[in-house]
Amino acid sequence: MHIGFLGLGNMGGPMAHNLLKAGHQLYVFDVSATAVAGLTAAGAQEATSAGAIAKAGVEVIITMLPAATHVREVYLGDDGLLANVQPGVLLIDSSTIDPMSAREVAAAAAKNGNPMIDAPVSGGTVGAAAGTLTFMVGGSEADFQKAQPILAAMGKNIIHCGDCGNGQVAKVANNMLLGISMIGAAEAMSLGVALGMDAKVLAGVINSSSGRCWSSEIYNPFPGVVENSPASRGYSGGFGTDLMLKDLGLASEAAKQVRQPVILGALAQQLYQAFSMQGNGMLDFSAIIKLYRQEN
Amino acid sequence: MHIGFLGLGNMGGPMAHNLLKAGHQLYVFDVSATAVAGLTAAGAQEATSAGAIAKAGVEVIITMLPAATHVREVYLGDDGLLANVQPGVLLIDSSTIDPMSAREVAAAAAKNGNPMIDAPVSGGTVGAAAGTLTFMVGGSEADFQKAQPILAAMGKNIIHCGDCGNGQVAKVANNMLLGISMIGAAEAMSLGVALGMDAKVLAGVINSSSGRCWSSEIYNPFPGVVENSPASRGYSGGFGTDLMLKDLGLASEAAKQVRQPVILGALAQQLYQAFSMQGNGMLDFSAIIKLYRQEN
Amino acid sequence: MHIGFLGLGNMGGPMAHNLLKAGHQLYVFDVSATAVAGLTAAGAQEATSAGAIAKAGVEVIITMLPAATHVREVYLGDDGLLANVQPGVLLIDSSTIDPMSAREVAAAAAKNGNPMIDAPVSGGTVGAAAGTLTFMVGGSEADFQKAQPILAAMGKNIIHCGDCGNGQVAKVANNMLLGISMIGAAEAMSLGVALGMDAKVLAGVINSSSGRCWSSEIYNPFPGVVENSPASRGYSGGFGTDLMLKDLGLASEAAKQVRQPVILGALAQQLYQAFSMQGNGMLDFSAIIKLYRQEN
Amino acid sequence: MHIGFLGLGNMGGPMAHNLLKAGHQLYVFDVSATAVAGLTAAGAQEATSAGAIAKAGVEVIITMLPAATHVREVYLGDDGLLANVQPGVLLIDSSTIDPMSAREVAAAAAKNGNPMIDAPVSGGTVGAAAGTLTFMVGGSEADFQKAQPILAAMGKNIIHCGDCGNGQVAKVANNMLLGISMIGAAEAMSLGVALGMDAKVLAGVINSSSGRCWSSEIYNPFPGVVENSPASRGYSGGFGTDLMLKDLGLASEAAKQVRQPVILGALAQQLYQAFSMQGNGMLDFSAIIKLYRQEN
Repeated sequence: MHIGFLGLGNMGGPMAHNLLKAGHQLYVFDVSATAVAGLTAAGAQEATSAGAIAKAGVEVIITMLPAATHVREVYLGDDGLLANVQPGVLLIDSSTIDPMSAREVAAAAAKNGNPMIDAPVSGGTVGAAAGTLTFMVGGSEADFQKAQPILAAMGKNIIHCGDCGNGQVAKVANNMLLGISMIGAAEAMSLGVALGMDAKVLAGVINSSSGRCWSSEIYNPFPGVVENSPASRGYSGGFGTDLMLKDLGLASEAAKQVRQPVILGALAQQLYQAFSMQGNGMLDFSAIIKLYRQEN
Repeated sequence: MHIGFLGLGNMGGPMAHNLLKAGHQLYVFDVSATAVAGLTAAGAQEATSAGAIAKAGVEVIITMLPAATHVREVYLGDDGLLANVQPGVLLIDSSTIDPMSAREVAAAAAKNGNPMIDAPVSGGTVGAAAGTLTFMVGGSEADFQKAQPILAAMGKNIIHCGDCGNGQVAKVANNMLLGISMIGAAEAMSLGVALGMDAKVLAGVINSSSGRCWSSEIYNPFPGVVENSPASRGYSGGFGTDLMLKDLGLASEAAKQVRQPVILGALAQQLYQAFSMQGNGMLDFSAIIKLYRQEN
Repeated sequence: MHIGFLGLGNMGGPMAHNLLKAGHQLYVFDVSATAVAGLTAAGAQEATSAGAIAKAGVEVIITMLPAATHVREVYLGDDGLLANVQPGVLLIDSSTIDPMSAREVAAAAAKNGNPMIDAPVSGGTVGAAAGTLTFMVGGSEADFQKAQPILAAMGKNIIHCGDCGNGQVAKVANNMLLGISMIGAAEAMSLGVALGMDAKVLAGVINSSSGRCWSSEIYNPFPGVVENSPASRGYSGGFGTDLMLKDLGLASEAAKQVRQPVILGALAQQLYQAFSMQGNGMLDFSAIIKLYRQEN
Repeated sequence: MHIGFLGLGNMGGPMAHNLLKAGHQLYVFDVSATAVAGLTAAGAQEATSAGAIAKAGVEVIITMLPAATHVREVYLGDDGLLANVQPGVLLIDSSTIDPMSAREVAAAAAKNGNPMIDAPVSGGTVGAAAGTLTFMVGGSEADFQKAQPILAAMGKNIIHCGDCGNGQVAKVANNMLLGISMIGAAEAMSLGVALGMDAKVLAGVINSSSGRCWSSEIYNPFPGVVENSPASRGYSGGFGTDLMLKDLGLASEAAKQVRQPVILGALAQQLYQAFSMQGNGMLDFSAIIKLYRQEN
């Protein structure tokens, strides 16, 4: 297929590469010339603007942008996608943004005659490179079916979450729970060890009991408990504290818009913020356990 | 074996019944005559005090009491177990108490020549009746080996957590994480639904993703998501809010003793406390989701 | 002076009346015809749009609007103030909005040749009617001096807080501390009374000691402690929970923008949100003490 | 008067000196010989145990001890005060302990025929030396009247808080609110400064507005705002973080006993705990603002 791709950063770049590998023809745009060069070297064609991609005769356009302001600008701006695209072209936004903004842009696209889905991902840069991302998709069943094979070139788990915006809803809800349970796991592990237990034995008990969670089993924040976890390699790699912070900010903002309390969610956001302020924003988010343990 | 059993309440009663079924000879004591009558009708012999049990020539004594004050009194009191028991008799305390108290009593027992283990349980009254409890055991490897077959008559998962007190440590650490992740699950489910998602679809996404936890998978607090969960039957049965509150109180108290912060743990305790004050202490603890949803 | 006034709601209406009383000539605009009629009956001239006010030859324009989106639209919109106003006209925004938006609009005004100050108020509808508001002013010293006599017709405490945006900063910082200390006072009073103390005696001790704060002295949330307080009249009147919630939302949003943790501030926001969800948004914010006391 | 005094530490020592200066005859006891020597050099007579003081024919006994365990031991122990004292001798406990323990000991004293009051203090070591402490007194009106002139030799503010235990209630309630409002002030000051305001100007606005509290006015945690405050001398002196932590621990423990939620109180406790764990327990508690500001 002929596909437009905007946003070739740490996530978008490898995703676009996987589309090329799957045999699609790509028209790419990014403000970074270096990012573009990486893709054109692999066979993509460069476009000079969002509008240019929209006019290139593509069947599908995928965007992978940092925040809602960029998404609004790229879709709704004067030289943006909607102002230039043919009706019927499928629009896929894989950026992680707040559900309200996703729904506004999708509504504008619908008015323009363009089906649109939101399809934020999880799996990080490793999953983007390996083509093993999870896509959480909001949009109509028909649009989901149409997008499915394209997304399958970049990920292995494509979940339909309901109507437009629900991909974003699923992501912020999941990641808020993740952010909370990681701190919970950090507190439980730190408490147990401070009270005299061996960390691996404690993790074993928790993981066979009701405290079990992804953060205790797969991604335990205590060093040495899970081999190859970020905790076991100095909290490098993985999912950065500042990325978790961004997602928790989206969750509390979305909660505010619908007047929904998220008490632990908001507290978790503040704890990651305090931890980030101390200079740890680039560490994997499981490093939050450092708030609970004396440095040796 | 000849076994003494003190504390025949909602948990201790069915546990003692399972020991009788396994062929052990029981000497039982409880302040409630009714509780005692239930066991003597099933073949146990009544003792008139803790001291009387200690002098009855039993090989093992098991206690299942409400709180640390009772444990201290039963073990350390003037007519208590240690003042009357023969050296060498194995002491098993299945009460849930703070680790420090457990270690103090075990140290007193050791001085008296009695091996002792702490073996708090999870699994609730259903598990107690069915003989499927989990025992988290603190004590020496030898004492654990000796206790194992006895505990196996009452539970199916017998975990050695390390030295004396570590059974209690494992339980408070696990249950603190459980109490936190349940509130996290309640917030994530409430937020997602408030933002327009179907509860079952959202639970499906979370349970196949990084937000996954026992509280979202097995015991989801949103009504109708997990069949036969407390949430699907009006939050009756299950693990009461006031029991969770007791365990979080033990966790924060133990944390204070070792000067360990437990930020989300302490906040979770307060939220269950506020919920209990509103008259909900007898509801299953997953009912905490009611704090996050408008009553219809 | 010839003054334009936009936004004649619960706050703006009485403020405009006080300007009329002080002898100023007013050109007013509001989307509500009723609100406008109240002012024209008192001698103001009606304008048909923001742009019309800007073109009416006024020397000063004051705006009192609900949120940042309205402020942006009124100042920056196609038929807005900046597109139509003469250079040199002083612009005063008394809306409570986030500091970043205030600074953006002020920068646009400066580019347009218009001095601008932000001057959010405290004192509520009672202070607006009585002309006893506090104005927290951000802008240059010269602009503050120019605005001072005009603001003095509407308030009695006019504080210069520094450059543009700092009026908003002072307001969100103050109100965040207020929102926190009110909950603190509610917890301290509830705890003391639950432990057996008389509420008035307890308030007396606190108010002569280090726990003393505006929320314990002037506005104590416990019924009967301060005569004529909202707590002593069923939490009617006063400063509504939903208004406190708005200000805490601005505080946590501003904090996020500068990557500053506000741990208690964010938790306070969530507690007022939970309380509002239970149907209490219209009660005075000191009613938050109901979260801590069993209803009789 | 002939007065017995037990506990001659940082607080008790200078308090006893002030009693001597006021012309009272003192019988003193402490486990530290150095502490005793300081008092005997000033004219006090040494006693060799709590029991010895009780038998020395004193009219009043004052205790100033670190925690409830010491209070119980000194009053209720085998060689303790109650076992040895004549009926009618007035007992004054100035230790800061939980209200429940205070009431238990007072009840035992009453049974023994001894009037007892709890009279915890605020004012720190500076107030103890200067004789300007505040005493919060729980006990009968008659016992309060009897104690008043004695306490007046050590403090200048003697407040009757109601029946036995209420002195402790007043202290934990006040100090919990103090601990919360100090963190609130730290957050508000940090936020305002991060958003571009001058710290002194911000404090000025807050202190003339509704955010005003003892922590913002008298003891502002931002360096340089209040001359001679701990914040302006590197957080040395003042009221140590670990002492605030002790009082918050008493507050949350007392709250648990009466099943009263203290949400911000418990969170404040955890934040001071985290701060203490990082090695700051000896700094004045206003140093908690360091959690909110990047070190330069």
